[in-house]
Amino acid sequence: MLYKFFRMEKLTVIKVGGKIVEEESTLKQLLERFSKIEGKKVLVHGGGRSATAIATKLGIESKMVDGRRITDAETLKVVTMVYAGLVNKNIVASLQALGLNALGLTGADLDYMRSDKRPVKEVDYGFVGDVKAVNASLLADLIGKGVVPVLAPLTHDGKGNMLNTNADTIAGEAAKALSRFFEVTLVYCFEKKGVLLDEQDDDSVIPEITRPTFEEYVQKGIIQGGMIPKLENSFAAINAGVSKVVITKADELGKDSGTVIR
Amino acid sequence: MLYKFFRMEKLTVIKVGGKIVEEESTLKQLLERFSKIEGKKVLVHGGGRSATAIATKLGIESKMVDGRRITDAETLKVVTMVYAGLVNKNIVASLQALGLNALGLTGADLDYMRSDKRPVKEVDYGFVGDVKAVNASLLADLIGKGVVPVLAPLTHDGKGNMLNTNADTIAGEAAKALSRFFEVTLVYCFEKKGVLLDEQDDDSVIPEITRPTFEEYVQKGIIQGGMIPKLENSFAAINAGVSKVVITKADELGKDSGTVIR
Repeated sequence: MLYKFFRMEKLTVIKVGGKIVEEESTLKQLLERFSKIEGKKVLVHGGGRSATAIATKLGIESKMVDGRRITDAETLKVVTMVYAGLVNKNIVASLQALGLNALGLTGADLDYMRSDKRPVKEVDYGFVGDVKAVNASLLADLIGKGVVPVLAPLTHDGKGNMLNTNADTIAGEAAKALSRFFEVTLVYCFEKKGVLLDEQDDDSVIPEITRPTFEEYVQKGIIQGGMIPKLENSFAAINAGVSKVVITKADELGKDSGTVIR
Repeated sequence: MLYKFFRMEKLTVIKVGGKIVEEESTLKQLLERFSKIEGKKVLVHGGGRSATAIATKLGIESKMVDGRRITDAETLKVVTMVYAGLVNKNIVASLQALGLNALGLTGADLDYMRSDKRPVKEVDYGFVGDVKAVNASLLADLIGKGVVPVLAPLTHDGKGNMLNTNADTIAGEAAKALSRFFEVTLVYCFEKKGVLLDEQDDDSVIPEITRPTFEEYVQKGIIQGGMIPKLENSFAAINAGVSKVVITKADELGKDSGTVIR
């Protein structure tokens, strides 16, 4: 046990969203790539497209504000079904077939992540959770035994309600809490190969960003929009004990590419 | 540890199906009763009514043969969403609110229960699983740590497919496998207070049934229909190491009532 204090085992927390986890062919490739990543690992997934599709079939309108889903009571049922049921179990069964002992979880399971229902300000997001407490000790124990947690973007409020929670946030919070037990690399997969110097050039990936270079890029307008909070979250993760954050494309998983934040 | 070999800790595995787990008011009562049962415990649930309701809304026809759902590819998606998502997470979040550290599982999670797709004979049941292997050691470990597993009626085939599996079967197989680690009582809740001597009299519960009395009751026509396989399964569980099987009504949970099979 003492050994752990000197040299912790490596753990990779990978967040993959978008249609890649929702289409059979791309999901299969992604999971094969994921299964080959060495060492302990955690997968965090989204599922928004499937949720929207099922909601539409059920006659429930999907309302989004700034890319976030307004989650009324009926929509909460849909995202609970789709994220914790359809998408999560499809991934878990597929990983088992690849020889990984996967375990699908929402924040309610093992009470590993609690949140507060977001207060109503300009927008009422409904049953959406802002993370309040992460209890990672049982999770760390299972990971130590070779289990691969597969985290759905749902938490609970401790009062019996599930809450819809952003998958990037789940990944960041889980990575921070697990950094007490492991040397954690947090990987955010998105549609580009990394943070780009030139938005028009997919190969202009910035290999490493530090706090000073980040501020410089923001001032120059090279980094803008949704990438700013993503990087702010990355620095916050580093400050909370995560060793390394990588922003990359799912296709590049396992390769030594993308933008690294230390 | 050695102590375990001489006197194992008690574990109650409770299966509750039917509308009781699918309506807010009755579910709340049930979970409160469940939370008060002393010692280690496992809850196994159904969810058929919700699955049928969601399937109907999605325009998928529910086909049943002898009370079993024909599970084609689209129906499999529905039961995976409803059992592992909607019903399971509602129960898990509610139990957390009652102070129980619940963990929702399908057979794919932790690879705890594998099955084979049922061979096509007279009826093609589709994606329905017959249990083949139960791997209860991680489950037992978690139960020992105070975790309360909540088992959805789904297994997997080890090849990446989820399979729809009868909740009574899940409860029986889990109870048998866990009897290696605990002194297990298996409780089947159904709509009557127990096995009745007189079907017209709800209070004519037979307090205890042994193999010889079972055979006598069957010969006399007192026990018939669906109760025969239920009792055969109960005797099989006893033969496989389960200490006691109780057949009772969910309302009576925690009371010393129902029919006992030893």
